[in-house]
Amino acid sequence: MPHSYPVSVVGICHTCQVINRFLTKPICILGLGLIGGSLLRDLKAAGQLAYGYNRSASGARHAASEGFDVSDDLESTLSRAETDEALIVIATPIGAVDGMLDKIKELAPSCGITDVVSVKSQVYDLVGSHGLADRYVGGHPMAGTADSGWKASQEGLFQGAAWVITFDHALDTHGAVSSSWVELWYEVARMIKLTGAEIIPSRVDHHDAAVARVSHLPHLLAETLAVVGDNGGALSLSLAAGSFRDGTRVAGTAPALVQGMCETNSEALVKALDEAIELLAEARTGLTAKRPSIAELADAGYRSRIRYEARSGLGAAQQDAHVATTSVSGRPVLRLLPGAPGWVKQLIHAESLGARIEVF
Amino acid sequence: MPHSYPVSVVGICHTCQVINRFLTKPICILGLGLIGGSLLRDLKAAGQLAYGYNRSASGARHAASEGFDVSDDLESTLSRAETDEALIVIATPIGAVDGMLDKIKELAPSCGITDVVSVKSQVYDLVGSHGLADRYVGGHPMAGTADSGWKASQEGLFQGAAWVITFDHALDTHGAVSSSWVELWYEVARMIKLTGAEIIPSRVDHHDAAVARVSHLPHLLAETLAVVGDNGGALSLSLAAGSFRDGTRVAGTAPALVQGMCETNSEALVKALDEAIELLAEARTGLTAKRPSIAELADAGYRSRIRYEARSGLGAAQQDAHVATTSVSGRPVLRLLPGAPGWVKQLIHAESLGARIEVF
Repeated sequence: MPHSYPVSVVGICHTCQVINRFLTKPICILGLGLIGGSLLRDLKAAGQLAYGYNRSASGARHAASEGFDVSDDLESTLSRAETDEALIVIATPIGAVDGMLDKIKELAPSCGITDVVSVKSQVYDLVGSHGLADRYVGGHPMAGTADSGWKASQEGLFQGAAWVITFDHALDTHGAVSSSWVELWYEVARMIKLTGAEIIPSRVDHHDAAVARVSHLPHLLAETLAVVGDNGGALSLSLAAGSFRDGTRVAGTAPALVQGMCETNSEALVKALDEAIELLAEARTGLTAKRPSIAELADAGYRSRIRYEARSGLGAAQQDAHVATTSVSGRPVLRLLPGAPGWVKQLIHAESLGARIEVF
Repeated sequence: MPHSYPVSVVGICHTCQVINRFLTKPICILGLGLIGGSLLRDLKAAGQLAYGYNRSASGARHAASEGFDVSDDLESTLSRAETDEALIVIATPIGAVDGMLDKIKELAPSCGITDVVSVKSQVYDLVGSHGLADRYVGGHPMAGTADSGWKASQEGLFQGAAWVITFDHALDTHGAVSSSWVELWYEVARMIKLTGAEIIPSRVDHHDAAVARVSHLPHLLAETLAVVGDNGGALSLSLAAGSFRDGTRVAGTAPALVQGMCETNSEALVKALDEAIELLAEARTGLTAKRPSIAELADAGYRSRIRYEARSGLGAAQQDAHVATTSVSGRPVLRLLPGAPGWVKQLIHAESLGARIEVF
């Protein structure tokens, strides 16, 4: 019986041995901005029972007017989640997570919890300080635009994107993790799968170090480039073309969002920033030499970009089209059975490869 | 007679007073890469007599097989240009300009010259040292992709793009500039107009300072980001999404091209780079504070990006679509009559506004 181990977890039909593609629980999303709103759209489109809370009444009304099951009453939403044993998705800015955990602990004490916040160590610490580690599996979809709010949300936003799923609790409990946590982990993985995203396992600190490099540093560099270009006055802005447009795109993100992600991941970000400053200082040295040269940086940068293109499946055509997310992933794939012996080692192996996983 | 001054120059029809939209001379393009090749395509499509030289025989054959008038024989091409009084466009990398000027001086001693090289001071110095300043008007189209070579060239590449036209010679001669130079300036402006680009006047040093900020610095930052992301290994590359993709796009440019533009504009680039390093160092200070904050950079970067979007006519829709060039320019417009009293002052005024000009 190859699938016997997780039968109670995975929803395999005992008769036909086909994995149930639907989630076993309703999904309750707290915060319906770009990410939370897009997730709600995907879940509804997939026929899942999903509902949400939005702090702003006007945002909630807007979503409701489009036919979504949305409320601006947090307490009643959480009571409902408790009643129907929903999986709760925290999709608020990082600053609101602490208060959300307070409310969840009080009003939805039985629900499993995941989140979509862009830093994971700080959220995991908050979860731990609330004594909720056994009910939490962290998540982070690597998708977004410079726009934010429900109005920016869209079905299919996560298609092909990386969606990190964390597993620190399995290590922190030294293998003695509860079966309910494994079940929760599986449910979160299946929710991710339903959005078309690719499931990338990572521990919280490895995640934070990686996103400091590929998500937070890009914002600092974009802001910097925007300011230096602007310092050049009208002529500079008139001459700005594709390289400036693309290099400053994410500087159009609301400053509060940029601050939220960068300031809560400051330790990892400083490390990445120091590497960047050192490379730029070396380039400066090369440029002020008698025979100016930036050969080293130009070569290294080119090779790195080519490696990234190979990894992301970003071919020349997609590069030109500026596709929002890649549909052909270059990420390696590992298959695993949640809760089976050795599965946590498999997760660590996948993390080291940047691999996506398929669960069965 | 409002148009009497430049009649011999502008090609106004004496009968109908309509400006001749065609160029008065054939165009001879030296170097048929992305820029030179795209210019040749535009000119042919507009019904202009245009032909070119390409160093690589295979590139020349490729262009010829598409029906273009192209040779890999520089000497015969320049002799032909001299015979039919062509306007010569130098579209080679900066490293080849010195040798081209030698050959032009020898084989096409009567032709007017412009160029499309991405730095202008160094080219202007080379032109001066060849004694060709009275036959030269500099140019630089702000268009391109990460790809290069004839195969990357395309009709319409310059549509809506800024195309700088220089005018230092008019100042260096203290207003005693020759009528043949004014005629050349006009011809270059009309060639630019024919491609659909917007004509932006600038002195060579102002141009170089501006492109250091908005074109060369973006390359250094993109290379740096690519390397720091790559340093994070497989997980980082797996998690890289839109901000990393756009922020590293131009790191995919051939290193030799990046070196060519950055190393020949090192003085202006170091100034821009120093501003960038200082902003990043300030951000680092903010991130290592007891209560980490990057509020200053996030706010300044956001405001700068919004100003740039307004200037470039880059609305939300175009931002999403990642249009190659903007079709609705936010640049102010000045009209001027080349050679008329005060026209050089008008050019300086336009430069200070980053304005595009219309010639009449």
